[in-house]
Amino acid sequence: MVEKQLIDSGEDRLIAKYFRPLVRHPGALGLTDDAATLTPPAGCDLVLKIDGIISGVHVFQDDPAELIARKALRINLSDLAAKGAKPVGFLLSIALPDNTTADWLAAFARGLGSDADNYACPLLGGDTDRTPGLLTVYIAAFGIVPQGTMVRRSGAQPGDQILVTGSIGDAALGLRLRRDPKRAARWGLNASMRNCLTQRYLLPQPRNAMAEALRAYAHAAMDISDGLAGDLAKLIRTSNVHAEIDVERVPLSDPVKTALAAEPPLIDDILTGGDDYEVVCTVPRDRLDAFRVAAAAAGVPVADIGLVAEGAGTRFNWDGRELTFEHPSFSHF
Amino acid sequence: MVEKQLIDSGEDRLIAKYFRPLVRHPGALGLTDDAATLTPPAGCDLVLKIDGIISGVHVFQDDPAELIARKALRINLSDLAAKGAKPVGFLLSIALPDNTTADWLAAFARGLGSDADNYACPLLGGDTDRTPGLLTVYIAAFGIVPQGTMVRRSGAQPGDQILVTGSIGDAALGLRLRRDPKRAARWGLNASMRNCLTQRYLLPQPRNAMAEALRAYAHAAMDISDGLAGDLAKLIRTSNVHAEIDVERVPLSDPVKTALAAEPPLIDDILTGGDDYEVVCTVPRDRLDAFRVAAAAAGVPVADIGLVAEGAGTRFNWDGRELTFEHPSFSHF
Repeated sequence: MVEKQLIDSGEDRLIAKYFRPLVRHPGALGLTDDAATLTPPAGCDLVLKIDGIISGVHVFQDDPAELIARKALRINLSDLAAKGAKPVGFLLSIALPDNTTADWLAAFARGLGSDADNYACPLLGGDTDRTPGLLTVYIAAFGIVPQGTMVRRSGAQPGDQILVTGSIGDAALGLRLRRDPKRAARWGLNASMRNCLTQRYLLPQPRNAMAEALRAYAHAAMDISDGLAGDLAKLIRTSNVHAEIDVERVPLSDPVKTALAAEPPLIDDILTGGDDYEVVCTVPRDRLDAFRVAAAAAGVPVADIGLVAEGAGTRFNWDGRELTFEHPSFSHF
Repeated sequence: MVEKQLIDSGEDRLIAKYFRPLVRHPGALGLTDDAATLTPPAGCDLVLKIDGIISGVHVFQDDPAELIARKALRINLSDLAAKGAKPVGFLLSIALPDNTTADWLAAFARGLGSDADNYACPLLGGDTDRTPGLLTVYIAAFGIVPQGTMVRRSGAQPGDQILVTGSIGDAALGLRLRRDPKRAARWGLNASMRNCLTQRYLLPQPRNAMAEALRAYAHAAMDISDGLAGDLAKLIRTSNVHAEIDVERVPLSDPVKTALAAEPPLIDDILTGGDDYEVVCTVPRDRLDAFRVAAAAAGVPVADIGLVAEGAGTRFNWDGRELTFEHPSFSHF
């Protein structure tokens, strides 16, 4: 009895049951050690990112465990994508409320494992705790790039075109629908459109397929997590340049176009609401064709939305006037 | 006004004011990018660890901010030490309750920066959030070892001696004093002894000075965070061996000896209470002298507490009988 306790604490059992089956990487040491090892290939830089999810803040408390796990990994994968990095693994730290059930944990592990496999980003190690507070999931994700080639925020140059992947505003409107489902009717959305938007909020689709194209052709890039307006403004400021954005050219999905036609002030939510997990980047004109070819080969739509110029500040032009925002960037502060 | 908001979100201001001054490493990119870079020297493995502190769980809610920050970093440094790794940097993720004050943040950053400098483990990047829940500080720390030389839990071999650094049980009794200060009188502790124990709980002293000696001479090692009994049992189990421990030889500080003499059942708390942040390791006999010399050169006391043998299980012998424990390992589960 004592021996059994000595060799088998509650945390050990939990790790063995739910997380050990996910292990694919030798550096995880079967999750039986205190740390993991990783050997980046010679000539590579490691790209490091940590980001977390707190239940009730970044996700709803009743979101499916499987999707919470996948979102926690994907928001980090999205940063690696925008930096041009290939994922190589991650550490997980999870604080579980006392009422966490075995079913919840099994679903969480299932979601995490499936995306670790999908994105070839294996679990390397981690830490589990109980908390009297909110469910908290932090992930530190690691990628590699050939030395010195991480795509930075600070590289935008006058004359670059500004491009974004996919479509903007879906998740922001999805979140608003989640909070107030009646809006779907007001916005004229059918069931499939509504579902499209709420899914985009629940489960980001990070653009890891674009990593190589960004590294090859972009001067600057970042992922869009806190809204296009605020995130682009950060990139432009860090690069010490000015940006002119043509809002009409910001790529919108059909559901977002439909909602926007019904309620034009939604443009503010669309451009500032966050959770897009698309990439905004700047590409010099002489590499634009090659970039488009690489994006098409990766199966990712890209849209040219504006221009980098000398100066400072980011200007959003819409319908012949400058668009201003109430809260340009989603912020918890 | 709009422009000011666009280029300066609350999170950006917070990072610029409190955390940017701590930056020492070029890979942190001045905390102006979404990710950090790290280039491990050729021929090295990276050693990765994530561990966190939740206020009210791992620290008291009224512990000084400076010490919470230092503890969060040090519990990770302790793992790197036991694995034989040299710290090279860390990522910080912090979720701040709404009532966090500027003074609290300034003290937190001061503590974090001072230990980052003390241990030559620079801040590389991170993430800040507001939370309606408990203060949560997660740190992912990175170290390097020459390729293939991370000291594992699994390497213990029959015939190895078992050694521990420093002294065991101070923090566990410090925590008990913190919860019930009247025990100090019952245990016959003077003010200086009491202070000794409570300080050991508040601020771990990780054994990073031992990293090289462990890598050079130890077959297996881990840091002691959840109590000597439970942590050693994990190492012994992972190594598929048996351990005989002579409890009389477990190194105890004068305050712990004094308390134990007054209340012998405290031996259970001393061996299982956790928060020691010492290192337990196994060293083959023919390297024992060299290991002792290296430890002395590093200024770290080491004590030989038992022997690895063939078989399974860990046996603690005390006063001619086997010691059993109520909860051998501190566990949040």
